[in-house]
Amino acid sequence: MDVAILVYDGFTALDATGPFEVLSRLPDVRVRFVAGTPGMTPADQPGFALEAAPLESMDRPDVVVVAGGSTTQRLLGDDALLTWLRRAHETSRWTTSVCTGSLLLGAAGLLEGRRATTHWYELESLRGFGAEPVSERVVEDGRIMTAAGVSSGIDMALHVVDRLEGAAYAQAVQLGIEYDPQPPHDAGSVGKAPVEVVRLMTDVMRRSYGPSWAELTTPAT
Amino acid sequence: MDVAILVYDGFTALDATGPFEVLSRLPDVRVRFVAGTPGMTPADQPGFALEAAPLESMDRPDVVVVAGGSTTQRLLGDDALLTWLRRAHETSRWTTSVCTGSLLLGAAGLLEGRRATTHWYELESLRGFGAEPVSERVVEDGRIMTAAGVSSGIDMALHVVDRLEGAAYAQAVQLGIEYDPQPPHDAGSVGKAPVEVVRLMTDVMRRSYGPSWAELTTPAT
Repeated sequence: MDVAILVYDGFTALDATGPFEVLSRLPDVRVRFVAGTPGMTPADQPGFALEAAPLESMDRPDVVVVAGGSTTQRLLGDDALLTWLRRAHETSRWTTSVCTGSLLLGAAGLLEGRRATTHWYELESLRGFGAEPVSERVVEDGRIMTAAGVSSGIDMALHVVDRLEGAAYAQAVQLGIEYDPQPPHDAGSVGKAPVEVVRLMTDVMRRSYGPSWAELTTPAT
Repeated sequence: MDVAILVYDGFTALDATGPFEVLSRLPDVRVRFVAGTPGMTPADQPGFALEAAPLESMDRPDVVVVAGGSTTQRLLGDDALLTWLRRAHETSRWTTSVCTGSLLLGAAGLLEGRRATTHWYELESLRGFGAEPVSERVVEDGRIMTAAGVSSGIDMALHVVDRLEGAAYAQAVQLGIEYDPQPPHDAGSVGKAPVEVVRLMTDVMRRSYGPSWAELTTPAT
């Protein structure tokens, strides 16, 4: 079984590592980070980089994972990347994304008419690709599975393992990585975080990430 | 604020990346992976490696995170590493571990008389270092915070952010990484997973990781 995790300069470290940790535990698996520009690929937070192989090194992956990041918007017109995604999806068992990675699936035309999700800050942007934005942690539609922000890749990957190998195997992997989450607060979604925290984080995102794709592409009235 | 995440050949990717992703969001922070043998440091699953700086490059970190891995037992007699840990702990605000990383804190003598946790497979081994093993996800005792297996580093790091910057800040970071976990099963701890899954995973650990430290160091009767 071949798993390709797509990264790029400015990907989010946990978007890629969460699925890596889970999917590495599939039987007889080879998990590889791939990138349009191969080599050491820095994440969006300083101090983290992963070595990525060329896209061509995995042209028929069984599972595709597209990581999100702070720079995803810049790749939405990258023909080589989108062509590889479309081609990989033709034969994949699961084509998946974490966080803003779903914008790339959208740009490749793979979310047309599908339910999909992404990081809450970009959720409405999915409409621009003909998708129906869904505020859920993991959204399955056909052979496509999209996940919400950053940490949701762990949940998504466990769903993939469940689909490929069954419940007992997925439970064993979950126990292996002891995924029994108990964060100190219950503030992990826009619906659960206090209103002022959502406002604060929206401001932080606006300054660090910039406007959402929907805002950038909606004609001014 | 300086954060040092200790890794080594055979560390677990998510042990290091979970805390990295959370602690990178502290204000004015510099997060650096460090290792006794610096350079590209491979994780315990093939295809993942991080560049690590020498231990000496961060001799007074504010936060220390010791990652776990499949090879931690081999480092329990590594004097240079243990000396660095003891010295770093003298001035750190928080000295923390994920998964089997707590065995290294134990070997450095830092868990003597303290409550602590680790991956469930190694939990009893903490007694050999004079610690009281606690089956909780995150255990705080003095300035030491230990976490359970692999994924628990995310929860632990959010606790550290909460302690350093307060609840609203920790909630904002949690929302930023959208940590609103919804795994497909509730099998992330020994107490929650079905008995046969615990048995299966214990067998897998015995084959892949080997005997626990407690088993290796208990004299045969």
